[in-house]
Amino acid sequence: MPVSPDELNQLRQQIDGIDSQLVELLARRAEITAKVGQYKSQVGLPIYVPERETELIAKRRAEAEQQNVSPVLVEDLLRRIMRESYHTQNVDYLCTNPQIKKIVVIGGAGALGSIFVDMFKRSGYSVELLEQNDWPNADGILNDAGLVLVAVPIKLTESIISRLKNLPVDCVLVDITSTKQKPLAAMMAAHKGPVLGLHPMFGPDVSSMVKQVVVVCHGRHAQQYEWLLQQIRIWGAILQQTTAKEHDDAMVFIQVMRHFCSFVFGSHLASENPNLKQLISLSSPIYRLELAMVGRLFAQDPALYADIIFDNKDSVALLSEFSVKFNQALALVESNNKDEFIKQFFKIGSWFGDYSKQCLVDSKKLLLKANDDRSLSGDC
Amino acid sequence: MPVSPDELNQLRQQIDGIDSQLVELLARRAEITAKVGQYKSQVGLPIYVPERETELIAKRRAEAEQQNVSPVLVEDLLRRIMRESYHTQNVDYLCTNPQIKKIVVIGGAGALGSIFVDMFKRSGYSVELLEQNDWPNADGILNDAGLVLVAVPIKLTESIISRLKNLPVDCVLVDITSTKQKPLAAMMAAHKGPVLGLHPMFGPDVSSMVKQVVVVCHGRHAQQYEWLLQQIRIWGAILQQTTAKEHDDAMVFIQVMRHFCSFVFGSHLASENPNLKQLISLSSPIYRLELAMVGRLFAQDPALYADIIFDNKDSVALLSEFSVKFNQALALVESNNKDEFIKQFFKIGSWFGDYSKQCLVDSKKLLLKANDDRSLSGDC
Repeated sequence: MPVSPDELNQLRQQIDGIDSQLVELLARRAEITAKVGQYKSQVGLPIYVPERETELIAKRRAEAEQQNVSPVLVEDLLRRIMRESYHTQNVDYLCTNPQIKKIVVIGGAGALGSIFVDMFKRSGYSVELLEQNDWPNADGILNDAGLVLVAVPIKLTESIISRLKNLPVDCVLVDITSTKQKPLAAMMAAHKGPVLGLHPMFGPDVSSMVKQVVVVCHGRHAQQYEWLLQQIRIWGAILQQTTAKEHDDAMVFIQVMRHFCSFVFGSHLASENPNLKQLISLSSPIYRLELAMVGRLFAQDPALYADIIFDNKDSVALLSEFSVKFNQALALVESNNKDEFIKQFFKIGSWFGDYSKQCLVDSKKLLLKANDDRSLSGDC
Repeated sequence: MPVSPDELNQLRQQIDGIDSQLVELLARRAEITAKVGQYKSQVGLPIYVPERETELIAKRRAEAEQQNVSPVLVEDLLRRIMRESYHTQNVDYLCTNPQIKKIVVIGGAGALGSIFVDMFKRSGYSVELLEQNDWPNADGILNDAGLVLVAVPIKLTESIISRLKNLPVDCVLVDITSTKQKPLAAMMAAHKGPVLGLHPMFGPDVSSMVKQVVVVCHGRHAQQYEWLLQQIRIWGAILQQTTAKEHDDAMVFIQVMRHFCSFVFGSHLASENPNLKQLISLSSPIYRLELAMVGRLFAQDPALYADIIFDNKDSVALLSEFSVKFNQALALVESNNKDEFIKQFFKIGSWFGDYSKQCLVDSKKLLLKANDDRSLSGDC
């Protein structure tokens, strides 16, 4: 049955009406989840409960199928709604160690340090900062600390740790540097009590710790800092245990290689000087995303990236090897050897295994989401 | 007011009830948008009307603020819902040129060609394919064609075009190759009538053309193919005009550089052979995304990427220059020259200008969305 122009306006009004109801539903839902958050914070339940999330989604997906609504759509919407409630639900968290007298965060005024200060305070701990100018009073500040968290730039970490030789013997000493072998060794040398290395795998810009990864490298007397790990779990983070060496080896690939390549890519673009606006306008979502992954680097703190790249002892060896691989591949292009390129392509693909297919599926999903609002500066 | 354990279950039941209402709202909304789609297809309105979208979102954002609901949340949800209706709304499209007798798609059985075949058919055109084995009958097939679309692999494009010397003089000749100078020159040489070069900036995996970019390089007699551009707009795509040379220059940066670097990155990883599962488990969302951008390449067709990289005449020069830049940056790391690294970082940042800040903002938004379902294989 065909539709007339008049009817189009009526249909649009009906859509507007439904969308208004959607806003009302969200308001009612937020009221209820606020109460749930209150309860969780009382009893110390983590905000993020994967099982509840899975169950809730499965039920609504089933209902969607019955009503001819895309279950994927329903799942996407629910996950987005749940993200909002994770991020707004809890202003306060259960304190897993109310006995502790004081937490000192060295560098707690810094970008990442201040996130931990905030989370500790919201969990009911008494927190004190120790900044550059406070060292004359350090003994007094550290005197009765139950936990000392070192949150200073990589290049200062070891020298700061070496100044912590007189901590109370039961005090837990923790660092959150993005390398782990050297800081952990320095902490083990400086302090006889419990020692723990952490690497929060997120930047200071995260709006909550929910679903963020924190790498855990055990030092000494793990039972004495189990409360801290439990506290971080309550904040919503996902803990991943590894050794300091495995951590550092992995970070060369995860952080150093990617940041360095993005740096070179940006350097190359700036030097060749193509019309950036045109590049963006001609790019489809996937290419805008590729470009954005490079561009985003240069809106951040160069000193941080210099530290990450320059302070890993394996950087030069790995980057040199990358350069060799680059020139080998370039030689294939120069000699027009497509067959060998394709052969290597398959070989690399089999190294990635099923992961590459999964990446393709996941990145498509993500691009659809990016495309929803033509973000990634498609309109600039 | 504190909440008791019993109440928690009640609260969860209330949430479930609200979420069920959400599913019902979606079902009702889909019924209405189906009718809207019907109307649009009758009168040839594009599915994607940016002004209507903007207006609809602005109204609901205002309502959200009044009810203490996050307007960003409401916008995200509405955009996701609208995406669903774009992709399901129109099975048929208005035909902008009902006079045309026949469209021939050469390579229409291929991945990208078949998308155009499908779209033409859904717009009411009579479409015929011309595949490898059909060349003995080519004259008969092409005889009364009003539009011939060349959708064959890059390496075959020019030789295929050179066989199209006897098209009807009013026939529009179009190609959709990912390079533009050579194919356009070949079409101008082979055919005296209207000629148009297109580059659809998406892969065969897109689920609709809505918001996808199609690059337009004019050849000859633009007024005779204006109907085709209008048709593509109705399908929802965004047309971007440029010259063939500007297009090809831009594509070296947009396609060649990125794909080549991803290839080398994958080659380097496969050869160094780190524990991939561990890399993924230790990666936060941004690093999983970086890795996924590499991994996804190897789930795709190597021949396509070989063609893109090898068949652009500027590839070798640009890649060689990249290699120089890489080694210059590596020398900074070897000599521990952080100061120069930071100096260059700022210089590159100022070349990117506001774009890099925008990238950071947009990629953060996107990562939050990725994090909603811990996609990008975070759980594998």
